[in-house]
Amino acid sequence: MIKIAILGYGNIGRAAEEAIKAAPDMQLAGIYHHNDCLDCIDADVVLVATPTREVQKFATLLAARGICTVDSFDIHGQIWSLRSSLDAVCQANHSVSILSAGWDPGTDSMVRALLKAMAPKGLTYTNFGPGRSMGHTVAAKAIKGVKNALSMTIPLGTGIHRRMVYIELEDGADFKTVEAAILADDYFAHDETHVIPVDSVDALNNVAHGVNLVRSGVSGETHNQRFEFNMTINNPALTGQVMVSCARAAVRMRDRGEFGAKTMIELRPIDLLPGSTEQNIKALV
Amino acid sequence: MIKIAILGYGNIGRAAEEAIKAAPDMQLAGIYHHNDCLDCIDADVVLVATPTREVQKFATLLAARGICTVDSFDIHGQIWSLRSSLDAVCQANHSVSILSAGWDPGTDSMVRALLKAMAPKGLTYTNFGPGRSMGHTVAAKAIKGVKNALSMTIPLGTGIHRRMVYIELEDGADFKTVEAAILADDYFAHDETHVIPVDSVDALNNVAHGVNLVRSGVSGETHNQRFEFNMTINNPALTGQVMVSCARAAVRMRDRGEFGAKTMIELRPIDLLPGSTEQNIKALV
Repeated sequence: MIKIAILGYGNIGRAAEEAIKAAPDMQLAGIYHHNDCLDCIDADVVLVATPTREVQKFATLLAARGICTVDSFDIHGQIWSLRSSLDAVCQANHSVSILSAGWDPGTDSMVRALLKAMAPKGLTYTNFGPGRSMGHTVAAKAIKGVKNALSMTIPLGTGIHRRMVYIELEDGADFKTVEAAILADDYFAHDETHVIPVDSVDALNNVAHGVNLVRSGVSGETHNQRFEFNMTINNPALTGQVMVSCARAAVRMRDRGEFGAKTMIELRPIDLLPGSTEQNIKALV
Repeated sequence: MIKIAILGYGNIGRAAEEAIKAAPDMQLAGIYHHNDCLDCIDADVVLVATPTREVQKFATLLAARGICTVDSFDIHGQIWSLRSSLDAVCQANHSVSILSAGWDPGTDSMVRALLKAMAPKGLTYTNFGPGRSMGHTVAAKAIKGVKNALSMTIPLGTGIHRRMVYIELEDGADFKTVEAAILADDYFAHDETHVIPVDSVDALNNVAHGVNLVRSGVSGETHNQRFEFNMTINNPALTGQVMVSCARAAVRMRDRGEFGAKTMIELRPIDLLPGSTEQNIKALV
């Protein structure tokens, strides 16, 4: 049995707990909060389900103790730098750290890599949603006069998205002023954005999300090779599950002596699954 | 540069040649026929593009010489046994053999594994076509009175398929007799099958194919997670390209000392792609 702990107990931590309980080869070794004593953790692998900006600190501390980690760090432009930093710690302490284990970055990244191997030339478009964007929601909430907000991402195709921003105003705030501030914010200024006042943002709450990932490309000299990956999912449930599947891969890699920090495109799909190599090849290949 | 040779020069061998020429990191090291002298091959990796039933013989001979191989062996029920046999030869001779590198088995297998990691409980249905089934076409051609045949696979959903069998009769053959023989053949007896006489099978020739792979499953305790992978492709062009991408992975694995025989669900997606780890992570994750 893999001894697995959770650090951070928000939406993702709770979903990961359910995925651990459903896994045939895992044993929950504790749920920790970010201000708990990390030296007390006794586990093969820890799911770092903290806010993204705290991932590096906690993953580094744990990797330095020889404990494997999995996170769902989601700032695309900083993944390489985080990987470089964690890789050195993992190599020195014989641990494995899997970064950006969610659905984008994460499983979508694996699909993008696979489609590029199938048709090396061409364009891939990743169309998100409809679903709530965490980053845009936080940005809208930070605007003066906004009491609560929800920013929905609506796919318009070819990687272009509309932002539907539902806001509850603070008492006395002027809608037109708040709307102008949101539209001028760098998070929204580059996309078609609609700001809509509502009585209750909570009444709109829904963790559904999805993706439509399309590639038209060239295999060898043959054009018009067409691929499409779609999903409609409960967002935290999928992210928690992907982290748990990656935890299994991390422990297997550690046991084979393959230490270091890896993104999901560097993992073997079979390592994500319980069961033997023979069972999985016979069932899936 | 990876020195890569092709053994067998049918549809797949020709398509693989185009993919090799389009690859930035490969150098074609010869095209060989199945009766050529294999001792003359000087290459890092050989694409075994022979008929499936000759794969084991040639892959074994080459692996025993320390040359990596890639094949698109497509008899699902015999993949594990082929892998076991080749694995021993590869381990003993420090080579890497990648089996069943095509789209099914192959890239579809990777998608099935990934979807199972995302939603461990549930059902996946792989719906093939519309496109020509090689196995069913060969079976129809073997029926007495058939001069030429084409068996199309038509997806009816939930993994159920219709067979549309277009046949040219030999002079004097009786259509009803031939039709009855086809319908009684084990290849066709279990599916809805229609036999249609035509003047020219060649006039219907088209290497288009496709897949619609769907999974509805459970992540943790959350049901109704829905996933779909679709493609419409030129069949030999995709198969040849996938073999070439796998050849890159085989050589990389050999260079890291990871000897043995592997199926595609045991490969890291990043190993299929040219370019550095940093480039691919920045572009795809």
